[in-house]
Amino acid sequence: MPDRISSDLIANLLDGECVNRDIIVDNFSSLASANNRSVTFFNDVKYKDDLLKTKAALVILKKEHSNLFGGAAVYVDDPYLAFAKVASLFNKTKYFDHIHSSVVLGDNITLGSNVFIGPNVVLGQNVRIGDSCFIGANAFIGDDVSIGNNVDIHPNVYISNQVKIGNHCEFLSGAKIGTDGFGYAREKNKSWFKIPQTGSVVIGNNVDIGSNSTVDRGAIDNTVIEDGVKIDNLVQIGHNCLIGQNTIIAGCAGIAGSTKIGKNCMIGGAAMIKGHITIADDTIISGGTGIGKNIENPGKRFTNVFPYNLEHKDWLRIANNLKKMGKK
Amino acid sequence: MPDRISSDLIANLLDGECVNRDIIVDNFSSLASANNRSVTFFNDVKYKDDLLKTKAALVILKKEHSNLFGGAAVYVDDPYLAFAKVASLFNKTKYFDHIHSSVVLGDNITLGSNVFIGPNVVLGQNVRIGDSCFIGANAFIGDDVSIGNNVDIHPNVYISNQVKIGNHCEFLSGAKIGTDGFGYAREKNKSWFKIPQTGSVVIGNNVDIGSNSTVDRGAIDNTVIEDGVKIDNLVQIGHNCLIGQNTIIAGCAGIAGSTKIGKNCMIGGAAMIKGHITIADDTIISGGTGIGKNIENPGKRFTNVFPYNLEHKDWLRIANNLKKMGKK
Amino acid sequence: MPDRISSDLIANLLDGECVNRDIIVDNFSSLASANNRSVTFFNDVKYKDDLLKTKAALVILKKEHSNLFGGAAVYVDDPYLAFAKVASLFNKTKYFDHIHSSVVLGDNITLGSNVFIGPNVVLGQNVRIGDSCFIGANAFIGDDVSIGNNVDIHPNVYISNQVKIGNHCEFLSGAKIGTDGFGYAREKNKSWFKIPQTGSVVIGNNVDIGSNSTVDRGAIDNTVIEDGVKIDNLVQIGHNCLIGQNTIIAGCAGIAGSTKIGKNCMIGGAAMIKGHITIADDTIISGGTGIGKNIENPGKRFTNVFPYNLEHKDWLRIANNLKKMGKK
Repeated sequence: MPDRISSDLIANLLDGECVNRDIIVDNFSSLASANNRSVTFFNDVKYKDDLLKTKAALVILKKEHSNLFGGAAVYVDDPYLAFAKVASLFNKTKYFDHIHSSVVLGDNITLGSNVFIGPNVVLGQNVRIGDSCFIGANAFIGDDVSIGNNVDIHPNVYISNQVKIGNHCEFLSGAKIGTDGFGYAREKNKSWFKIPQTGSVVIGNNVDIGSNSTVDRGAIDNTVIEDGVKIDNLVQIGHNCLIGQNTIIAGCAGIAGSTKIGKNCMIGGAAMIKGHITIADDTIISGGTGIGKNIENPGKRFTNVFPYNLEHKDWLRIANNLKKMGKK
Repeated sequence: MPDRISSDLIANLLDGECVNRDIIVDNFSSLASANNRSVTFFNDVKYKDDLLKTKAALVILKKEHSNLFGGAAVYVDDPYLAFAKVASLFNKTKYFDHIHSSVVLGDNITLGSNVFIGPNVVLGQNVRIGDSCFIGANAFIGDDVSIGNNVDIHPNVYISNQVKIGNHCEFLSGAKIGTDGFGYAREKNKSWFKIPQTGSVVIGNNVDIGSNSTVDRGAIDNTVIEDGVKIDNLVQIGHNCLIGQNTIIAGCAGIAGSTKIGKNCMIGGAAMIKGHITIADDTIISGGTGIGKNIENPGKRFTNVFPYNLEHKDWLRIANNLKKMGKK
Repeated sequence: MPDRISSDLIANLLDGECVNRDIIVDNFSSLASANNRSVTFFNDVKYKDDLLKTKAALVILKKEHSNLFGGAAVYVDDPYLAFAKVASLFNKTKYFDHIHSSVVLGDNITLGSNVFIGPNVVLGQNVRIGDSCFIGANAFIGDDVSIGNNVDIHPNVYISNQVKIGNHCEFLSGAKIGTDGFGYAREKNKSWFKIPQTGSVVIGNNVDIGSNSTVDRGAIDNTVIEDGVKIDNLVQIGHNCLIGQNTIIAGCAGIAGSTKIGKNCMIGGAAMIKGHITIADDTIISGGTGIGKNIENPGKRFTNVFPYNLEHKDWLRIANNLKKMGKK
């Protein structure tokens, strides 16, 4: 958590080539809002004007762009990723052992070292929390929950009974993990009888879950979120889903129950994925797209939202023409 | 809440035919993960292999499938529903009278017997809670709220002033009931003036509402959720909606204000229903489908999402052709 | 906050014409549920029957409708807006200085006069709250947050560090303001590296944000919500968005990161707007519509949801015909 970093150290960290040595920076910034103590990055020629005008002390960029910039620079292959790594050096918060006096602890709690538990947190029975964890105010952790090391649980998060969480995870405010799945059998009189939801949720390492997102517990077996999965805000993961390693899911998407999503998939915002299907590895699903069938071949991209904007009056004409197609 | 159940008792409960008597089970499970003390079920020939390999002590299945399985069995008409009922025997939690010392109670609170109120719960004035209710940690219950018997309110739920709730309801973590509806009148300068939302929400018996779902209070009259309605996670119910008896609504769906939905409807995940319309009884709306007009005839199914997956490049061709339809 | 209001006072407030003087009302209501002490309004000839049968003491309506109603009336140009203003007279809650004993306060807190802070609220360091604010139970306010006057923060709301909020704002239960934006750079091994989110959220005056909605903090620069913006429930606003003055966004909509929306726009429920685009002033986006490109000309309306309901079997025929368009 340094206050000042040198260009040498940055080049070293990034395995990059340092053009000017002994430049000291104390903040990270965009090109446009940089000051003469900032490190920033340049990745896209669209921002060439910003590069020319930047006041930054140090710019991280590709060597192929070296002709565009005469100032102090570090050359790397992927400036965006490199910048993220430098920025994260400035942004580390260190938590320290502190259990607020208002915390309610069940029996048989095991806490690692350097654990912070904020006001009004409630922990159930048989909870195990690893080292260097942060549990924000008003969070709830149920019975028999196990949490690894370096996990950040923000305020107002709910973790239900028996949920298992790996290391280096982060759950943003309002995320709900392990609430009951949505399973009902229909009676003859058309009322619904709830299926007990007695599986749980198993979450790997390096998993992030966004604000107000919900991950249902399994009906009998578990819902599984593998290592490296990143989930944005207001996403719903149904019961007994499996989300494969390093898959990323943008905001407002919904994955219905028992669907298995492969590794390294990219699922756009507000995408809707049906239940009980399988999606191959490396699939890309565009934002807003509905997926209703298995995807068997890996590495393909699927879309069904319009690639242009439709004015209301033009759309009405299209819709009228489509309607005719529906006639027998 | 038994620990062990006999096959006779199960057959009796289900009004089913018991092939082998005196089988004792102590857990319920899927076919694949059953052990020799499990009861499980078989409903779909798709899982025939699992049936052949199951280690379960007892299988609930249809009599027409009796030739597929030689082990201990109970025959019923609807194995899924039957299994749900057996499973629920194992899954009963009994709450007992306990009001945590941190609970904040307003004036004139009436509590039934066997009520559990967890840490940091806040109750307003004139709250009435029936028998055998559970109010989880960090929940908030406003003024003049009335709650029936056997209601489970999970942690971090918010119930606003004047909301009325029947018996045997369950609200999952983060559900918000009775927040203000979204009503504004536009000023000449294009700013918005808020319409006071002074109706409330009336919820019948056997209603379940999912995690982080929101049910708005009415503007003047009430929002109404009838008996037996089941609502999944991240669903929005606008002000002055009426959701008819036994209608089920899957995750991420949104119903805009003043819409009246009939009885026994099935609304798929991420369906979007316009405001101020009426939907007939027994309507089925597929997941992701938008409904913008009244549905007058009961028992029909509506869909407007693709029944196949579209690769990005194929969709671009379709979209280009559609665009031409929009030209005058 | 009067209990009784006279027709003269209402006419005066509304700059309307009062047909009958000295009528006293003590509640506001719809036409249908009015009693003989109610003020109500009539705006739409669709409700003519309700007008004829109403028991209201006083009706607010357009002068052009005066022939439809013989009772006590106030004539105005916009009865709905006028009614909202009258109704709001009855609906004012006055908060008074009260900090509950369970509140956890950080160092260097500045509170205005008439501030109510409910049970279990947690405030960080260097928080500034103006006059006549309400902070509901179990809310969390982070470090360095500044809140203006007349702000209502309902129970279970989360306001993260450094968020700035103007005057006359209202955040409904479960809203999360300033949680981390969703930004990751991809490593060569396909895992994701989180970009620190060190911008914040700046919110103007007269902004309302609905229940369980989420507004992400900016990556480096701020997310900005301008004066008069109204946001419904379960809406996601991505990092570094700018939402222009008096724009209104209905429930379940999602705006992806870095998108700039103009002033006075109307965005329907469940609309999905791509990241990194610009939307002109006075744009109308229909509910459920996806927008993937810049909108450059102001005042236009965009739609891509069907203007009719499609029965499942008819849609399958349309979809089959569309599929053919996708073949090379």
